Amino acid sequence: MTTLEAIRGRISANKFDPTQELSLQEIRELVDLAAQAPSSFNQQNWRFIAVTKKEDKEKLTALAYGQQKVADAAVTFIVLGDLRGHERLAQALEPSVKAGLIGAKDVEGWSGMAAKMYSDERMARDEAVRSGSLAAMTLMLAAQDKGLASGPMIGFDPEGVRKAFGIAERYLPVLLLPVGRAAPGNWPRKPRLQADQVLAFGSGAGL
Amino acid sequence: MTTLEAIRGRISANKFDPTQELSLQEIRELVDLAAQAPSSFNQQNWRFIAVTKKEDKEKLTALAYGQQKVADAAVTFIVLGDLRGHERLAQALEPSVKAGLIGAKDVEGWSGMAAKMYSDERMARDEAVRSGSLAAMTLMLAAQDKGLASGPMIGFDPEGVRKAFGIAERYLPVLLLPVGRAAPGNWPRKPRLQADQVLAFGSGAGL
Repeated sequence: MTTLEAIRGRISANKFDPTQELSLQEIRELVDLAAQAPSSFNQQNWRFIAVTKKEDKEKLTALAYGQQKVADAAVTFIVLGDLRGHERLAQALEPSVKAGLIGAKDVEGWSGMAAKMYSDERMARDEAVRSGSLAAMTLMLAAQDKGLASGPMIGFDPEGVRKAFGIAERYLPVLLLPVGRAAPGNWPRKPRLQADQVLAFGSGAGL
Repeated sequence: MTTLEAIRGRISANKFDPTQELSLQEIRELVDLAAQAPSSFNQQNWRFIAVTKKEDKEKLTALAYGQQKVADAAVTFIVLGDLRGHERLAQALEPSVKAGLIGAKDVEGWSGMAAKMYSDERMARDEAVRSGSLAAMTLMLAAQDKGLASGPMIGFDPEGVRKAFGIAERYLPVLLLPVGRAAPGNWPRKPRLQADQVLAFGSGAGL
């Protein structure tokens, strides 16, 4: 599937075939693809909890106001952003250091810059949402490429999810992402505003 | 180009060929593709300012701490999220109503739900960052498919950009996104953490 076909073909699915599972390897590959997204300083401050077991999915469905897709999808990812990702920058950059792309000096310099930027709590939260979203979008298009459907959700109780799934304070739930085989009965693709309705040239005055 | 090739091949470019331009039509098509991303209630609360003129790019470069890629790329998008996108839900859903996919009752019901959710200022800000990021990621992969490079940036002065480009208070600058032909001298692709370093099954305890 070409990228443009994936972009234009994707729908946000509500109906999933509950009989279809994904292997651990398939789930890992989706996350590996999601993790190819960009992030500030390459801090890779996204994290994923793959919810696949029946009882866990039922718990999560209840925390998502009963939305059945959470239970029916082969996996529902809880996509998290690490509010303190900058503190782990050295670990995130280790593969780049090992590959000889950057040196210890770069790691030190970037860590200093990141520490300064993200001492602002709002910046840190924005970054967690941004990185989690960039990775989630990549995951959705990767899933589409593999013939899978996805249905991103923000309708859930984030604090309830945190407690029920043992999620540390440092992680912000950014969205839930059911992924699996589509069942019949999904919405057709919803048309969008025209480009000229969301785009201005050279100034925001026209928006 | 397949979706997976685009995902695995994309780099965050710093070096762009300043002699290469994009047509208005090419820029519109990139935005049209970005706008295929999902958004809460399909509110499509992303907006884009395409900065293409020399003097505008210089102004923006200065507000991005002199980062030359802003000036060298054919276009630098200021990607915005509308903090009050829910107030325009009826407009955003008009294409779906016209296509017969949803009815006036749906628009009314969703608008009521959205108004309630986004009366919380933090929810509204998170949503602006999330939607802007989902659209930006889609745009980056679309650009990759078209043989273009992109280099997402958060290192800029958002309030300075707001003033210099006449951006209303309702719009939050989410990131800057230079897009154009790559020049020689970019970083090779930076390796990522392994999937098992960012993924847990069934519980956040392992993260």
